[in-house]
Amino acid sequence: MNRHPDDATPLATAAPGVQLQPAAYEKLLGALRDSIGRLAAEESFERLVVPPVISRATIERAGYAASFPNLLGTVHSYTGSAADWRRLSPLIAEDGPWHVQQEISDLVLLPAACYPVYATLAGRDLEQPVRFSVEAQCFRQEATAEAGRLRTFRMAELVTAGTAEHCQNWREHWLQRVADWMETLGLKPSIELADDPFFGGGRRIYQAAQRAQELKFELRVPVAEGLPQAIASANIHKDHFGEAFEFTAGGERGNTACTAFGLDRIALALLHTHGSRPVDWPEPVRTALNGA
Amino acid sequence: MNRHPDDATPLATAAPGVQLQPAAYEKLLGALRDSIGRLAAEESFERLVVPPVISRATIERAGYAASFPNLLGTVHSYTGSAADWRRLSPLIAEDGPWHVQQEISDLVLLPAACYPVYATLAGRDLEQPVRFSVEAQCFRQEATAEAGRLRTFRMAELVTAGTAEHCQNWREHWLQRVADWMETLGLKPSIELADDPFFGGGRRIYQAAQRAQELKFELRVPVAEGLPQAIASANIHKDHFGEAFEFTAGGERGNTACTAFGLDRIALALLHTHGSRPVDWPEPVRTALNGA
Repeated sequence: MNRHPDDATPLATAAPGVQLQPAAYEKLLGALRDSIGRLAAEESFERLVVPPVISRATIERAGYAASFPNLLGTVHSYTGSAADWRRLSPLIAEDGPWHVQQEISDLVLLPAACYPVYATLAGRDLEQPVRFSVEAQCFRQEATAEAGRLRTFRMAELVTAGTAEHCQNWREHWLQRVADWMETLGLKPSIELADDPFFGGGRRIYQAAQRAQELKFELRVPVAEGLPQAIASANIHKDHFGEAFEFTAGGERGNTACTAFGLDRIALALLHTHGSRPVDWPEPVRTALNGA
Repeated sequence: MNRHPDDATPLATAAPGVQLQPAAYEKLLGALRDSIGRLAAEESFERLVVPPVISRATIERAGYAASFPNLLGTVHSYTGSAADWRRLSPLIAEDGPWHVQQEISDLVLLPAACYPVYATLAGRDLEQPVRFSVEAQCFRQEATAEAGRLRTFRMAELVTAGTAEHCQNWREHWLQRVADWMETLGLKPSIELADDPFFGGGRRIYQAAQRAQELKFELRVPVAEGLPQAIASANIHKDHFGEAFEFTAGGERGNTACTAFGLDRIALALLHTHGSRPVDWPEPVRTALNGA
């Protein structure tokens, strides 16, 4: 592979939406992680690094399986006998149905970095807001694979739980803060009211309600010519997770909010905007990124 | 969660073998990554960061599905209609079989970090040995969950492909090099000839052959009281991957070798040996780890 060592462009694999990342890209992602860390230093976040799989029961309880069955990846494994496997195993070579005895496991692929946080709050009463900084490799079984539409991707999130008023104010603060941060990186995000594409027509009414409540704002930047993608979002969930995981704040059902950074999409937006070699990017961008 | 900020002990989750990692643990893993990077600096490795899912066809071709069906996690998703989902979705709340229409996808969970490398070599003739440094979050559907027996874990690997003689010499060199490196970290590994626990009794003959060929050496260190685990290994695969992915070296079928670092197990072994707060570890260990 004759690549320039400073070239940060990810490498495609046989699977759509699954990329390998060279050294220069890894370095860029590390710089983004550190830059977000400096941005978050004014508040006291508890840091958690989250694995790419999570208890299926947690994701069912959170409501994700019901709303996004088309995006959810479930983990299955073979639980049959050795005798059965001697019969099934030869089917692999002929591209046959060797996997008919795969059974669903207790795990699913993590769809967003914040889910383990809500599970840790189950049953608690929060006297003060809590704050978490999480990062994980997430998965969504996307139906298309245009630029930036990865199935496996790295997400950083700042998450808070507390009262409704706290969460609303915190989200407003962070929406502006992330937009300003992107400007320092030479990106010009458009901020758009969004809704999640719930599966199935029966949820259109819910989607309209979601928009009316202004739950989700996305920051969109082109990751390829004429192709803007949401590279970050600032969200309130009202008491959705407080209800699902039974935690309270100030005696009321707990509210939550989060700011999500799509690290891979931010990296792709930067590469599209400034070129494939981060060492050659404009001085102000490198300074903002590296905190010099 | 009233933890000391210097405490690097991972946090358990509802799922066995799935842990959350606090800031001090993330820092320790970063130091291990950098330390391995310095160890590898004498050779020119191409760096690739690998996602936690991989093309199912690649893993079938590599022979992993046939040998380890019990450990392999396959990724499934819902491909049914919205009408069917309106019928299935209510089953989630009653712990019913909402997942009967999950279909196997083109992806599986990555069982070891090195597999994408072999796929990139398909069809090539290697005039000189090639070298890769890879890291990935890996998955194995382990049946037990004693200390160190994680289902999702981070693995770093140094991989080479070339002639049989090159791979044999390279493995001997790295087996000693990793053992020496562990000593500088205050660990006392036992080096043991090992075999992979192939699924099903019919493979016992193959296992004996594998041991006789000395394909796999493990470096074992306790990760809890009286519980040694393999925290690294040095392996040759003869021409197994050269045959599967059809690459050659010097006109012969290509050979491969790899050195695998179980980053989470190394971290757990260090925490068990030196205590839960890395900032309080003995000065020589911290110096070796941080390269000061």
